[in-house]
Parts: sequence; structure tokens; C-alpha cells
Amino acid sequence: MQNFTFYNPVKIIFGKGSIPKLGGEAARAGRKALLIYGGGSIKNNGVHEAVTDSLVKNGITVVEHAGVKPNPVLTHAREGVKKAKENGCDIMIAAGGGSVIDEAKAIAAGARYDGDLWDFFSGRAAIKDALPVFTVLTIPATGSEMNQGCVITNEVTKQKFSTVSPKIFPKVSILDPETTLTLPAIQVANGGVDALAHLIEGYFTTRDADVTITDELVHAIARSVISGTDRIRVNPGDYDARASMMWSATLALNGLQSLGYGGTSFANHAIEHSLSALYDIAHGAGLAIIIPAWFKYHLKTDGPGRLEKFGSAVFGVKTAEETITAFEKWFGKIGEPTRLSEAKIPAADIPEIAENAMGLIKRWGMSYDLKTVEEILKKAK
Amino acid sequence: MQNFTFYNPVKIIFGKGSIPKLGGEAARAGRKALLIYGGGSIKNNGVHEAVTDSLVKNGITVVEHAGVKPNPVLTHAREGVKKAKENGCDIMIAAGGGSVIDEAKAIAAGARYDGDLWDFFSGRAAIKDALPVFTVLTIPATGSEMNQGCVITNEVTKQKFSTVSPKIFPKVSILDPETTLTLPAIQVANGGVDALAHLIEGYFTTRDADVTITDELVHAIARSVISGTDRIRVNPGDYDARASMMWSATLALNGLQSLGYGGTSFANHAIEHSLSALYDIAHGAGLAIIIPAWFKYHLKTDGPGRLEKFGSAVFGVKTAEETITAFEKWFGKIGEPTRLSEAKIPAADIPEIAENAMGLIKRWGMSYDLKTVEEILKKAK
Repeated sequence: MQNFTFYNPVKIIFGKGSIPKLGGEAARAGRKALLIYGGGSIKNNGVHEAVTDSLVKNGITVVEHAGVKPNPVLTHAREGVKKAKENGCDIMIAAGGGSVIDEAKAIAAGARYDGDLWDFFSGRAAIKDALPVFTVLTIPATGSEMNQGCVITNEVTKQKFSTVSPKIFPKVSILDPETTLTLPAIQVANGGVDALAHLIEGYFTTRDADVTITDELVHAIARSVISGTDRIRVNPGDYDARASMMWSATLALNGLQSLGYGGTSFANHAIEHSLSALYDIAHGAGLAIIIPAWFKYHLKTDGPGRLEKFGSAVFGVKTAEETITAFEKWFGKIGEPTRLSEAKIPAADIPEIAENAMGLIKRWGMSYDLKTVEEILKKAK
Repeated sequence: MQNFTFYNPVKIIFGKGSIPKLGGEAARAGRKALLIYGGGSIKNNGVHEAVTDSLVKNGITVVEHAGVKPNPVLTHAREGVKKAKENGCDIMIAAGGGSVIDEAKAIAAGARYDGDLWDFFSGRAAIKDALPVFTVLTIPATGSEMNQGCVITNEVTKQKFSTVSPKIFPKVSILDPETTLTLPAIQVANGGVDALAHLIEGYFTTRDADVTITDELVHAIARSVISGTDRIRVNPGDYDARASMMWSATLALNGLQSLGYGGTSFANHAIEHSLSALYDIAHGAGLAIIIPAWFKYHLKTDGPGRLEKFGSAVFGVKTAEETITAFEKWFGKIGEPTRLSEAKIPAADIPEIAENAMGLIKRWGMSYDLKTVEEILKKAK
């Protein structure tokens, strides 16, 4: 078990009817909110009204910043920074899924910075200050509501890059599972894949195979993500499944999932981000394509041990090959593609995708070369 | 799944060689430390020297408060408050196990209060302020290093009572598993029982049986506590087992273990505290006596469902009765008593023990009456 530091000061308010608590929490931090959201689904499910009601009742003025895209883009985040500065906003309210929260974190940091926002993602600057962020989560998936990371896509350079700083931990995140009851099945599936992906990155790239407690936690959260996704498919109105799924996805990337492993290499994410950046496919769908291919590569380089352990604990299978098949079968069952061809991405593009992925692989300090990434992608044909 | 709020801002610095980081962390909070510890084992294993070195190097003056007892007592905590006030201490450093940390938390609150310390435990006053607490943990057991609770025994009234406040969360807790390598086998066992007890209190008193994620986490941490304890018994020098055990015990009572259950009734702790208060036996030993008896009562009132689920996931058994037997066998294997008689507590004392337990049961708002507590204790004869 390797040394680690763990610190996560996010306050979670969880459960049905929790949104009215937002205003009171936010009012301790500021008076003028930039309300960040996406395509407007929160106007149909009552979240927008509940959020603004609670803010206004607590004396907070609201400036809107709508239209965040599923893979949030730099130009829109820059607009948000401009709006926050011009209006003197002192709190960020994100109402939506991980993309909305990520853009809110980026704007929060950008609003307290004189240079260009992209500096934080390109590695030119570190985040030294940020406005306080509050979130109302509506899609269980990314874990952004309880961590210090965010991802933004630069449309010009076609780079989907990330940044990390304790300054962008949300102050308070409200998780009301009832807001997810109307989520389409494919978004539930995408969220399930994403949460599972967060769990496996550390587990399969660990420098240390003797970390019982973290292995146990990863197995536990993975089983819960899978059973939650499955129950919701059968009965979308199952509140307890929605609730368990929501908290599971948060726990899948709040830091606990990799403690003692001695560092996590986000290999699947590094390659998938290129699929999202180049083809604008859903992050979950891209991961479902990359993960089985990456496992096949991983099995060759690292042997069957971890795949066997995970497969036995989570899927009840024995061999490494059976574990990979179990992943593929489950992805297929919940409606995800597991091959590039299923997502209509031509095999002829593999060199270009690999070339793009190298940007993030270098940025994250991973050792993969271009040939390795191409080899992994070829297994996903 | 019931609504909940989760907030835990404790910074954990985990791993071998971590103690020298203490001084830098503490120096951000103050200049004069009250160093609280127990019977002096930290002087034999190098912890005392490492702690004071790190504090002094960072310009912190140290006032000592040694002699904390395994069930920390009110008079000694009061002395600590007096010492902290007289010397103008502005930070509390606890170096030891849960008893030392609990007393440090009590002193931290008492030093910022004009009335008597016991007011926080009797329910007469709530903690409104406290000096910052830093801990160096040397015994995995109570979880106090990452939670907001503490327990003190009033020797005059023979009451072992607790208090809870976000003000007494430690700022930073240092967990170096190497400090536990010399821990006697019985203290390892006591810690294992205590951690397991923290996990089962919420699990078996839940108002809601459909909380997949928390059930999974409880099973995961319980398996890790049991396997860690077992591995250490066989090979006390097994660093990875010591490390996994240390982090498992912390996670067993940092709040995560009962989220969504709708409130935890600490039944086993409420009754055990009377054994500790009246006979000064180790908390872990008392719990090993109470838990099987309480399970037998619980099976009668609540049915076999939860016992079957826990037993299947943690011990690989099927029935509720087999689960209770598995607990008893494991307690016996690690050298713990499972009957009052084994701890030389006469059955004739049961009325007196039950009478004492009623104090805490009322204080914690539980519904058990005297007859119920006597019935449970009789099953432990």
C-alpha cells in the first residue's frame, strides 16, 4: 500500500426535496450568482424553477449562462468568464450534469484570473484562486460534483484537456435523485459506463497489488453502479435504484477509489477524450469502445491477475478473458457500442485518433507511445 | 434510501514516514501546542520524538499532557483544559489511539468554553467553538481521527458519554502504519472488533433496507477489517496488512458507513459503554460480548433478512444463526471474550449494568427500556 493524501471538503446534501436548501448555503458565500446550465432540460423538469426560487428567496441575484454542451467547449466557457466579470458575479451555480459542473469550475477559476482560461488546461498556469462553486446534479456520471477536476474541449485545437485544483472543489453539492427520474435510458447507461471507467483506471494501473481496502471499495462501488444501472433499465421510476446509482457515481471519482495505488494512469480516458473531441460522441459511449480494447492490451502487458480479481468480485467469473467478455456483454446489454464501427468511426481514422490522443497522454505524463495507442485502437475496430 | 448530509473536511496524510509533515501543517494554525498522549508507549516507538521534532522545527512550543487512560476520564480532560488555558495553547496535538484523540477533542472544546467540560457530554451545552486538533494515530480502531465525535468517562457518575460537533473534526490526521507494527495482538483484535461494531450499528438498525451502495461499502470495509486483523495475527510485521487495517478502521466510522439508512442507533455501543464504565474493560472486548447477544435479540425483533445479507457477503454463510455463530467464532479466534463470564463479570450484576446503560440510551434518544437491556445482557451470560 503506497502513501497518499486525502482531502475532500465538499458538503453533500442528498435526497428528494433538497434543492430548496441551495439558496441558504449559497447566501453564505455571495450575493450575485452566475447560473450555468445546458440545453434547457432543467426548465422542463422543474430544476430551473426550484434553483432560482431558492436563490432569489435568499436575496441572491441571478445572471444566466445557458447552453453548455455535453462536451463543454472553451469558447462557451470564455463567454461565461466574461459574463461573470462584467456582472460582478461572486458565486457560481451549476445545475446539470458533469459537463455543466466542469464548465462552472472552469469559469470560477477564469473569473479570478487575468490571462486566458485555456492556460489552466494547456499547463501554462495553475489555478491559484476561484469563485465558490455550488452544484445541483441532475446526471449521475462524472463525479465532478465531489472532486477537484474539470475537463474542457478546445474546439480550435480539437483538444479535450483537464485541470485539477483544490480551489475548484464545489462548496456544496445537492444531489436530488428525483431530478434523474426523467433521464433517458442512454444517459443512464453512459453515466454507468463513465462511473465504472473511473473505478477501473486506478485499479488496473496500480503500482501496488496489495491494497485490500481500496480493492474492496472499488469492487463494492462497481457492483452498485452495475446493479443500479440494471434496475433503472427495468424500472425507470425506481427511486431507490436512482438514489443508489447517484451516490455510487459520486463515490466512483471522489478520490477514495484509488488511495494507496500510488497514482492513477487514466489510460482509457486519455484515448476516449480523442473520440469525444474528434467525433463529439458521448463520453460513456467512447469509453465502452475503448475499455475492452484496452483490457486486451493490458492483459498482454500486465498479465491476468487484476482482471481475474475484478471479474471474480464483480461479475462472478473466473478468467481474465471472461472478465473482458463480461464487460462487453454488459455494455451491449445497456445499449452501448463496443466497437468503433458501431459508432460509425472508420478504422482508417485510427492514426489520426492516436495522434490526437498523444496530446493528452503527454500532458498527463503517461508513457504510451503512438504505436501503443494505435495498437489499442486496432483492437476496438 | 433516506436523505442525508455528508461533510468531512479532515485532511488525511497516510503512509510510512508521514509524521515529519505534522509541524508544517500545525504551524498554519498556531504557535503553542498542547501535546496529548497516553501511558508513554509513544516514547518507546519513536513517535514522541518524531512529533516533537517536527513541531519544534516549525517554531511551535510544546506543553505536555500525558497520562490519558484507555477509557479517557473527565478529571484528566479537565486538567488538560486548565493546562491549555494557563499556557495559552492554540493547537491540540493528539498522539495515540482513539482515547487520546477523544480527550484532545474534549480539551479543544473545553479550552474555548467558560463552563464545565461535562456540559457537552451531559447535553447541557453544545460545542460552539474549539481549538484546532491535529492527530497522529497509533491504534486503528475508533475512527476518531476522521470524525466529529468523542467519548469521555465521568468517573464520579460512572457515565461513559459522547458528544458530536463539526467544530471538533481534526484539521489534519497523520496515519503512519509503521507506528502500529509494535501494537500487541490484543490491541489489534480490540481495534478490529471496534471497527466492525461501527459498521454494523447503522447496517442493522437502518430504517431503510434498500440502500445498495451503503450496504456494499459496509460489506467491503468489514471484509477488509477482518482480513487485515487475520493477516496481522499471522504476521505482525506485514506492513500492507497494517496499512489496509489502519485505513479500514478510519473508514468504518467517518460517516460513509451509514448514509441513506435514515439514522443510526448505536445499540451495542450504548450497552457496552456501561461495561467499560463499570469494569474498565477494553471497549473492543466489551463489544465482542454484547454484539452476539444483541444479534440474538435483533433476530427475534427484526427477522433474519439483514443478518442473512451481511453473513452471506462477509462470512460466506447462509442463515442468520450462522452469521451470529460466524461473529462469535471470529471473536474467539482473535482472542476476545464473547460472554460476560469470560470477562469475569457476574451475571448478578446485570440489573446494575442495565440501569447504567439506560443513562446513555436516554441521552441518545433510543427506545429501549430497562427490561429490553436486561434481556440482551442475559443472552451474554
